[in-house]
Amino acid sequence: MTVAAGPKVALIPRGKDQGYTEEDLEVRRAWLAEKTGCRLEQVAACTIPAAALRGNVENPVGSVQVPLGVAGPLRVRGEHAQGEFFVPLATTEGAVVRSYERGMVAVSRAGGAIARIWLDENRISPIFTFSDVAEAREFALRLPELGEGARRAAEATTRHGRLLRLVPHPVGRRVIVDLCFSTGDAHGMNMVSRAADAACRWLVKTLKSDPGTGRGAGVEGFLLFSGREGEKRMAGSLLDGGKGKTVTAGVRLPRRVVRAVLGTTPEALAGLFHDTVLGHLQGGALGHNGHAANGLTALFIACGQDVANVANAALALTEMELTPEGDLHASVTLPSLVVATVGGGTGLPTARECLELLGCFGSGGAPKLAEIAAATVLAGELSFAAAIAAGETVIAHETFGRNRPEEENIDG
Amino acid sequence: MTVAAGPKVALIPRGKDQGYTEEDLEVRRAWLAEKTGCRLEQVAACTIPAAALRGNVENPVGSVQVPLGVAGPLRVRGEHAQGEFFVPLATTEGAVVRSYERGMVAVSRAGGAIARIWLDENRISPIFTFSDVAEAREFALRLPELGEGARRAAEATTRHGRLLRLVPHPVGRRVIVDLCFSTGDAHGMNMVSRAADAACRWLVKTLKSDPGTGRGAGVEGFLLFSGREGEKRMAGSLLDGGKGKTVTAGVRLPRRVVRAVLGTTPEALAGLFHDTVLGHLQGGALGHNGHAANGLTALFIACGQDVANVANAALALTEMELTPEGDLHASVTLPSLVVATVGGGTGLPTARECLELLGCFGSGGAPKLAEIAAATVLAGELSFAAAIAAGETVIAHETFGRNRPEEENIDG
Amino acid sequence: MTVAAGPKVALIPRGKDQGYTEEDLEVRRAWLAEKTGCRLEQVAACTIPAAALRGNVENPVGSVQVPLGVAGPLRVRGEHAQGEFFVPLATTEGAVVRSYERGMVAVSRAGGAIARIWLDENRISPIFTFSDVAEAREFALRLPELGEGARRAAEATTRHGRLLRLVPHPVGRRVIVDLCFSTGDAHGMNMVSRAADAACRWLVKTLKSDPGTGRGAGVEGFLLFSGREGEKRMAGSLLDGGKGKTVTAGVRLPRRVVRAVLGTTPEALAGLFHDTVLGHLQGGALGHNGHAANGLTALFIACGQDVANVANAALALTEMELTPEGDLHASVTLPSLVVATVGGGTGLPTARECLELLGCFGSGGAPKLAEIAAATVLAGELSFAAAIAAGETVIAHETFGRNRPEEENIDG
Amino acid sequence: MTVAAGPKVALIPRGKDQGYTEEDLEVRRAWLAEKTGCRLEQVAACTIPAAALRGNVENPVGSVQVPLGVAGPLRVRGEHAQGEFFVPLATTEGAVVRSYERGMVAVSRAGGAIARIWLDENRISPIFTFSDVAEAREFALRLPELGEGARRAAEATTRHGRLLRLVPHPVGRRVIVDLCFSTGDAHGMNMVSRAADAACRWLVKTLKSDPGTGRGAGVEGFLLFSGREGEKRMAGSLLDGGKGKTVTAGVRLPRRVVRAVLGTTPEALAGLFHDTVLGHLQGGALGHNGHAANGLTALFIACGQDVANVANAALALTEMELTPEGDLHASVTLPSLVVATVGGGTGLPTARECLELLGCFGSGGAPKLAEIAAATVLAGELSFAAAIAAGETVIAHETFGRNRPEEENIDG
Repeated sequence: MTVAAGPKVALIPRGKDQGYTEEDLEVRRAWLAEKTGCRLEQVAACTIPAAALRGNVENPVGSVQVPLGVAGPLRVRGEHAQGEFFVPLATTEGAVVRSYERGMVAVSRAGGAIARIWLDENRISPIFTFSDVAEAREFALRLPELGEGARRAAEATTRHGRLLRLVPHPVGRRVIVDLCFSTGDAHGMNMVSRAADAACRWLVKTLKSDPGTGRGAGVEGFLLFSGREGEKRMAGSLLDGGKGKTVTAGVRLPRRVVRAVLGTTPEALAGLFHDTVLGHLQGGALGHNGHAANGLTALFIACGQDVANVANAALALTEMELTPEGDLHASVTLPSLVVATVGGGTGLPTARECLELLGCFGSGGAPKLAEIAAATVLAGELSFAAAIAAGETVIAHETFGRNRPEEENIDG
Repeated sequence: MTVAAGPKVALIPRGKDQGYTEEDLEVRRAWLAEKTGCRLEQVAACTIPAAALRGNVENPVGSVQVPLGVAGPLRVRGEHAQGEFFVPLATTEGAVVRSYERGMVAVSRAGGAIARIWLDENRISPIFTFSDVAEAREFALRLPELGEGARRAAEATTRHGRLLRLVPHPVGRRVIVDLCFSTGDAHGMNMVSRAADAACRWLVKTLKSDPGTGRGAGVEGFLLFSGREGEKRMAGSLLDGGKGKTVTAGVRLPRRVVRAVLGTTPEALAGLFHDTVLGHLQGGALGHNGHAANGLTALFIACGQDVANVANAALALTEMELTPEGDLHASVTLPSLVVATVGGGTGLPTARECLELLGCFGSGGAPKLAEIAAATVLAGELSFAAAIAAGETVIAHETFGRNRPEEENIDG
Repeated sequence: MTVAAGPKVALIPRGKDQGYTEEDLEVRRAWLAEKTGCRLEQVAACTIPAAALRGNVENPVGSVQVPLGVAGPLRVRGEHAQGEFFVPLATTEGAVVRSYERGMVAVSRAGGAIARIWLDENRISPIFTFSDVAEAREFALRLPELGEGARRAAEATTRHGRLLRLVPHPVGRRVIVDLCFSTGDAHGMNMVSRAADAACRWLVKTLKSDPGTGRGAGVEGFLLFSGREGEKRMAGSLLDGGKGKTVTAGVRLPRRVVRAVLGTTPEALAGLFHDTVLGHLQGGALGHNGHAANGLTALFIACGQDVANVANAALALTEMELTPEGDLHASVTLPSLVVATVGGGTGLPTARECLELLGCFGSGGAPKLAEIAAATVLAGELSFAAAIAAGETVIAHETFGRNRPEEENIDG
Repeated sequence: MTVAAGPKVALIPRGKDQGYTEEDLEVRRAWLAEKTGCRLEQVAACTIPAAALRGNVENPVGSVQVPLGVAGPLRVRGEHAQGEFFVPLATTEGAVVRSYERGMVAVSRAGGAIARIWLDENRISPIFTFSDVAEAREFALRLPELGEGARRAAEATTRHGRLLRLVPHPVGRRVIVDLCFSTGDAHGMNMVSRAADAACRWLVKTLKSDPGTGRGAGVEGFLLFSGREGEKRMAGSLLDGGKGKTVTAGVRLPRRVVRAVLGTTPEALAGLFHDTVLGHLQGGALGHNGHAANGLTALFIACGQDVANVANAALALTEMELTPEGDLHASVTLPSLVVATVGGGTGLPTARECLELLGCFGSGGAPKLAEIAAATVLAGELSFAAAIAAGETVIAHETFGRNRPEEENIDG
């Protein structure tokens, strides 16, 4: 069977000077209108200066608008985030903001969510191929001695990234090496990709230049991404952290707060935990949670994060239990929370405002944002669980998703 | 240890009449400004009418803007999508649009991506508790006879949803029942939640009213969501579909297109597939893909989808292979793609324009959107794989993520 | 790099007439003794007639002996197994039999374990390759019409196997088809392999003979095992059953039995469940259990089962909870329990005795054996959990694994 | 609902003096005969001295016999195993020994399998509960300083075990700590359980005795096994090793060996790898392999290993690929291979002979056994893959599983 290549295709116009002037955007929209009949007038109502789109998007035509609500107050007792926060959530799913708000009120009435960061890294996991299993093993054995050179090669490409560790994993005649970086307040994937690439090239060059030792000399090449890194994917390897921040948040909710704000009991929520872990285990889930992805996605869109990281960040382990005193303890563990407060989309006008609303914009803000994010997820999990336990899931959606004559009383 | 509830908290003002007037938004922003010092002026530059935010968000304060680029042309040979498309992608990650565009050109030059929908359902998986294992088993045995009543109860709540099947899964003395619905062109979670709730209540009432049979009579209650449904979560249960659409897209790329557009060879891409499946397997990944989440997220934000569904939709199985003729065949399989073209955020001004750009807005558009989405992911996978195989990942990000004097020639 | 094939190798002598005479075994042992210096005298003390080894092993040299203990009584309230059983367990791990016995006494004192079978199938999951995604989809659409022919082709190869259903799963231009068989009381993999092979060949022949329709005509071939079947492997697909029997067993243990026999409390065991599900979720486990593999393995070795099926059968979901009355309810769910009472190793002398001890030997025994197996696992889980909860894990192993002056009182 | 405890149950007689005399076994068998009518005469034909059963089994009644075949020669080029081996396999599944033998001949004709050990540890993963998330975090931060004391406490209980590292994993207000031990040539679970228990008790005591620091003082208790350890279970956490030995084995098979011995081509096997990884990924499998469990189980039974460890050891990642020269490279990676050559069942008469046949019995033999096991699995994978690729799976089972007039020529 022969495959014939079709005719050349008409490319979207690039525009002069990179295509990031208002005129370029207009040219592009006009071209699309001619092709498709759609004028993108609302998209054109973009208040981001065309030049500012550079680095965030190509072939720009304007912006999309996502409704922004605010939930709070959320009291956080972290190491970086301390006090009450009003959390910007960009979503189009009715009831999400109200649901998170209810959970935040419950958390705050209980004194706030304790939040802690356990690990803060970003890894790239290249895969190296060797002539055989023995050469692969030799390479792994030499990694400690080679590490310093790799680190220098990596760090020569970046002012902020630090190569912390190299951890080998065998797969037959191949070795996957976790290159674990610290990236400061940036998302850092570009930074660490560049650094990792330099490290890998240095390693291969060094191995090849020293065949006399016969140790790991049989290297055939490498691929920068093996998939093990779990970037923007579902993977069990994320459970142990290393792709972004590992954060926990927890709260001890007095029984009367559970009743007054959440409309249920600690027993019901502990019972729900019991039943839903069974559901998660039966379904082969990674982690256990109610709707962590809702809050994270809304926060990520609001704050100019790389939203596709929800694919890994939404791995959450939510836990609820009845305490001996008859109260509820609830927690969330987020092994792979990727957030940034510099670079990427964080500087775009609305994103910057959202980050500033949380006091997280710019250098030093990332750990604070991570703690707020974890506390936000915790609040959302409590509210969602309460809705299911109380049999009110449907009511909530009917109420907030549409209209409701009177607001319910969530302030206890 | 006693937990003292903290003081009452200051709630965000709700506003009169639901808080969906321009004035209400202003009041809310002013209140936040007083609390936090942040004025949200860019957020206020929202061109969505305040009243139109109702049903999409609560406590609204305006909108966030996400840069929108367009990639294409993407030729699709689906059952619903046929022809060339220009795909709107809302993102803040530089190089994503350019990367997808390159893949789209390759796909289109090869004659287009074939796309097919295999399954189109949306499930809710409640969990029922019985007095013991025997009663649970009796319930499952009775499900076929009970199904019709459950269906009637469910469908009485909705004009569009249809309860297709009930599939039981045992967990000790509990039974998880997949309630499988068709939801037309809507996202449908609210619709099917309501319908499922009605079905569950009918089932429990019926079991309790007929204790004489002793068959499944020992029901103790149910929770509407067990977690098995995999909504917005990572779960192996998604691999067999049933949460949204199961879609495949594939293309046979002639060697010279691989070379000219993607800058690599079929052998290199097939070799990359070999190595990265090892990486995915070593990392305990669900599925196998390069960066499916990037394209899906950008398309979802652009088109007013429920972006949190990326947590399940990003489960993708990308495959590449060398054909006997020396060409490349590549495919993606998306078991759990949740898209909508009516309801939710699809009617918001910019979302509507983006859907219209694809010819997908409104009734009947969802299958078309699903096929375009799958073809988009396929294009992105090809481009990403090519970048890794050619060792140009870093270059791509440096180029598109920042500036570049001259555009490369991607039209072969 | 060129690989040179080494010299020919010296093969183990096959013997005349298949090598299944006592003399052949002796010749083989002598040959090995010459090669290695090891005489295998204990192995030679085999009481299985040489001829009877045929069909179970090749190059036979005798047998290995595994210590056999008996645990019980185990009261089972199944549909097939009813009454008290003494369970043969072949193991070399000290304390296992004693631990299971303690759990069995607890279960029996509570009135017995309720056991139920939910599903009883054995699948083969071949993978078919088509020219493209569209042809693959056509094949799946035609499966209902093709099913009857495939069934006839399959069942022509076997007297006992029945092809129940064909369920397609898409992967790009390939289709994996679950061929779901019933196999009666046999393990059945050989039977269903043969039947599945015939069905697949019929399907391919039929597709190729009818290219005129253009529907699924582009078939390129098939492989009989795709891996999806989960035979002797760890796979999430096992969670929904279909590889052997899906069985549940449960028991309601009065508080005083928990105390007297297990030495702990319902609260402690429910608390342990809470904590260990967290451990399992954190570790990315499939299912949740304490040491289900111990009991299953020991029972399988004793009863001449295909022990390698422990790799799938050990997928177990153990659950424990405090009831409102202050008692404990515990259950196990075994989605993929493969057992047989005819064929394979079940007719070997010691295996037959062990099956007879349970009243399960021969035709009709498999469902009974499955229920006993599930109840056995349940007992073992209770005892293991109790040991951990009471902090006595180490003591148990020290006691039973070595010596102990006085047996503890486990009969309450 | 009240649960009434049933009547006392009749216990299996324990016998005087621990019940490990021939007379005790006879008493027990007679008692069972009276209860069940089964006399266990074949089981009684046990040549293991009754006293020698002590420590391996309780309530002993004799032994079961499992047919033993020998496969080989298997040439291994390991660091510990070097030369040709004849591998004892105890199984009741016809065709398994022949299949492995074929693979071994292929491997040996290619010069042998290279085998390497990457990691050799055994972990216990207790879970500690703290009053809140902050206290849990403090504990983890203090672990480095506490580690030395924990190590001393652990090692005071054992002459052979060494506590290598303590690695914390957060789950809300709990911390799971991997206690990573080296265990020499023993299986070691009893040894490390005892040592881990001592370490945990020391940690808790130390934390409680020093509340003044407020650092990790809020400890509430611990459970020795959280489930994360993956002992005898399916778990993604096994992929990174730490539960037993991580071993790889690989071989480069010349095309003519593939043809002559395996009856297929490198292209066919590489194609099979491509297709079956798709099947494994679609089925949510951990790892990728054909029938690794078969060889491991048969080897484990033969050699007196803890066979229940197949539940974790069968996690295997098999890989095959076409080399640029047209040959085949194949490898297996076993992340969690638990083997022992001292203690447990290794000293039982037939087990000892099997270990001696491999030259692995006793101190120092475990790494050698691990390399042989990996090479054995590799051989079996090649043969199984060849059978599927050549469409001869069914034929093989029909041939070896039953009778066959003439042996096929597998020596090329």
